[in-house]
Amino acid sequence: MTVAKPQSKDLTHLLSDESKSRQNSPLKSAFKYFNQPGMTFLGGGLPLSDYFPFDKITADIPTPSFDNGIGAQITEETKSVVEVFKRVDLNDPAAKNVPLARSLQYGYTEGQPEIIDFIRTHTDLIHKVPYADWDVVASVGNTESWDSTLRTFCTRGDSILVEEYSFSSALETAHALGVNTIPVTMDEFGLIPSALEELLKNWIGKTPRLLYTICTGQNPTGSSLSAERRKQIYEIACKYDFIIIEDEPYYFLQMETYTKDKSSREGNKVHDHQEFIDALVPSFLSLDVEGRVVRLDSFSKVLAPGLRFGWIVGQARLLERYVRLHEVSIQCPSGFTQSLTNALLQKWGQSGYLDWLIGLRAEYTKKRDVAIDTVDEHFPKDVCSYNPPVAGMFFTITIDASKHPKFDEFGQDPIKVETAIYEEGIKEGALMIPGSWFKSEGQSSPPQKNLPHNPAGKTHIFFRGTYAAVPLDQLIVGLTKFSRAVKTQFQIDH
Amino acid sequence: MTVAKPQSKDLTHLLSDESKSRQNSPLKSAFKYFNQPGMTFLGGGLPLSDYFPFDKITADIPTPSFDNGIGAQITEETKSVVEVFKRVDLNDPAAKNVPLARSLQYGYTEGQPEIIDFIRTHTDLIHKVPYADWDVVASVGNTESWDSTLRTFCTRGDSILVEEYSFSSALETAHALGVNTIPVTMDEFGLIPSALEELLKNWIGKTPRLLYTICTGQNPTGSSLSAERRKQIYEIACKYDFIIIEDEPYYFLQMETYTKDKSSREGNKVHDHQEFIDALVPSFLSLDVEGRVVRLDSFSKVLAPGLRFGWIVGQARLLERYVRLHEVSIQCPSGFTQSLTNALLQKWGQSGYLDWLIGLRAEYTKKRDVAIDTVDEHFPKDVCSYNPPVAGMFFTITIDASKHPKFDEFGQDPIKVETAIYEEGIKEGALMIPGSWFKSEGQSSPPQKNLPHNPAGKTHIFFRGTYAAVPLDQLIVGLTKFSRAVKTQFQIDH
Repeated sequence: MTVAKPQSKDLTHLLSDESKSRQNSPLKSAFKYFNQPGMTFLGGGLPLSDYFPFDKITADIPTPSFDNGIGAQITEETKSVVEVFKRVDLNDPAAKNVPLARSLQYGYTEGQPEIIDFIRTHTDLIHKVPYADWDVVASVGNTESWDSTLRTFCTRGDSILVEEYSFSSALETAHALGVNTIPVTMDEFGLIPSALEELLKNWIGKTPRLLYTICTGQNPTGSSLSAERRKQIYEIACKYDFIIIEDEPYYFLQMETYTKDKSSREGNKVHDHQEFIDALVPSFLSLDVEGRVVRLDSFSKVLAPGLRFGWIVGQARLLERYVRLHEVSIQCPSGFTQSLTNALLQKWGQSGYLDWLIGLRAEYTKKRDVAIDTVDEHFPKDVCSYNPPVAGMFFTITIDASKHPKFDEFGQDPIKVETAIYEEGIKEGALMIPGSWFKSEGQSSPPQKNLPHNPAGKTHIFFRGTYAAVPLDQLIVGLTKFSRAVKTQFQIDH
Repeated sequence: MTVAKPQSKDLTHLLSDESKSRQNSPLKSAFKYFNQPGMTFLGGGLPLSDYFPFDKITADIPTPSFDNGIGAQITEETKSVVEVFKRVDLNDPAAKNVPLARSLQYGYTEGQPEIIDFIRTHTDLIHKVPYADWDVVASVGNTESWDSTLRTFCTRGDSILVEEYSFSSALETAHALGVNTIPVTMDEFGLIPSALEELLKNWIGKTPRLLYTICTGQNPTGSSLSAERRKQIYEIACKYDFIIIEDEPYYFLQMETYTKDKSSREGNKVHDHQEFIDALVPSFLSLDVEGRVVRLDSFSKVLAPGLRFGWIVGQARLLERYVRLHEVSIQCPSGFTQSLTNALLQKWGQSGYLDWLIGLRAEYTKKRDVAIDTVDEHFPKDVCSYNPPVAGMFFTITIDASKHPKFDEFGQDPIKVETAIYEEGIKEGALMIPGSWFKSEGQSSPPQKNLPHNPAGKTHIFFRGTYAAVPLDQLIVGLTKFSRAVKTQFQIDH
């Protein structure tokens, strides 16, 4: 027996002044006549598609199941060619293509139906959204989705909850809009639910409307929230009536758990689509019975950042406000992006796309393994520690600053140790980012009585590295150089 | 002797609170080491381009000089094929292509250098910008450029100057941001400089920072500002220290002056590139010695709206603030758009692009002529008048509502006449947009002593039509139907 899914709660009381005041264009009432039979529509300033100087576009793409790895050079054997015509391809009317006459025209702020349908099916396959009236709208990537989210829910002077260490650009986006970011304490496994609850219990005045979290492969800490913590945080969200913004560009960069035993690594791989899906940590979206999660998703880390194609998943009532905002800002993602990405996805199908994601998992697992093997081998264990990430592009090396020979000379300021190591790294020819650069700090005093105690202590600093951007040999070279910088600073022989 | 161009004035005092408070990301200081020789950069979360599943893309485009018209179906004879590879094409390293490994990666918020260079050269060719430190940055179209402009210069509660009738979405964008739009009186030739001066002379308190104008082929009125008016308005801008935002999507939809004499039309065409350039109305940008014009430009009406590629021209100091905003919102236009549009432009060259624009001028002149011929033939002259547009997609039909048989019954309310005609049009199967839908009205009382008298009078209404969106035969059918609706309403035989 299938149980009908519940409807979402009405959360429109959480909308911002800007979003609440946004009116529909009066022209919309005319556009319902646009395609009415017998109607000559002289209302809209659309150029004729006859004048679009692109008649056909094509792309060379790899063919599933990507047996030589997703990074392998495409060969004549593995190549597929997708074609998109200006008008519907009469030779292949079932191709589910987005013809250029449509994608290069105005319209479809929500995204072209074919690609949005594909994403909807994929989303339900992965997240099994537990309420009925959820939907998907297109964006031009998570950076824009986050900016639009702030505009949709926050008014100048509001405060939002963020992770204690977070993506500095995301914090800066909020600050420029006059939105305070109040840090919630983390440990190596991410946000601490009890710290969140403690913060809200002691909150004075209107509690925040948003929690912003990069919950899988967190930037910068590399941590990932467990299913258990997500459940607890979701309950807190329901209790204190806020919306969880899960910014999840790295969700499909989940990996096998790190093991030092190289011989066992091969055996840990997922074998099929179902095993792959089951191995993914449950998203906040998958727990969302009330419709209070807004998920920001993107092809940037999965296909390519320059597509500038992301999507927002959430309850339809709230998404409608994003669409009104997009109508007067981005309008929609590029037509070329929509036509070509859709052509690739339709060619691959849901199954081929899962093959790609499994390939991505294998690549990132390999990169992470090389990074952590190198860290383990070269960094001095008496001052350095690490926690192998299970997702994302980032790993961190934690360093006990109090063991630095000049700690007293530095006035016991760990940040001075951090700076010294950063600069020593640059001298050695290896750059990792100081953790303090990601520290979330509210712009004005946070309106709560007491910040919970930070259990990480104050003498520890960390550096963020990535295994994403460099080939494996360079990764080893770079980490070895950085380890030398650490040893030099701590006067350890190398 | 070449005289060195002057530098722009520093106008950063006109920036908004949001824009002034926007900080650079601390990560930027690390990125200067990104390509330093000998440096292993483990700082940035960039995916390897090996994982981008697009190896090569191509487009079929028409070849200049488009002798059969820009709307002609491409044939084997007129077709060019442009190709963009993931890596630089070693067979054609001079192609000035934007390889996919770059366009599909993060970076280049200002736009890819090759396409921005092309646009810079084109801009100087057309506008001969009279100061030195102007520049160009990419956007995702004028809708977004306008939204970003409001965020860059306006703070909630500010007022800006707009045309008395304006693009309703642009007004709505301002209103949702809490920005009042104060209408400036227009006549059939656009904004009236003396009305603008009068308004500002009587302004109480801080004068507005922006004038927003669609000065060529204005939406909705179809009017275009003369060179003389532009000069006067520019002087007022210098005097009252505001920035002119010229939103110019229709700039290259300028046409020959309308003449009823069909036999003379062919002879009025421009014959070469120089004649074409000389025939264009001078932009505000071309008059801008102080750097107080921000020009919003776009390929939407020239190539295709779905490219989602626009650009902003202005002084570098102000553009830098747009780039910081774009870094935390849109990032940059789609890589596919940049690679393919750049490939088309490089293939055509500046000369081929001018050929295209000349072709566009011919097409729109033809469409405008058919529209105005039909209006002239079918609309009752004792109640209707028109002013043939010289640019853009729109024309208007002005109607004397006081001659409507039910004018008294309607309580002498011209809007009721407008509604009656609109609805009669829909019954006849032709839709034009009521002019009152575009009326600019401030959200709160405008802060000036007296609004200048509106010389258009209160008994005239107008309807906006477009000749852009429909083929010529449909245009004739639609206008004939609408003229019947007017005649029916005014009880004139047909």
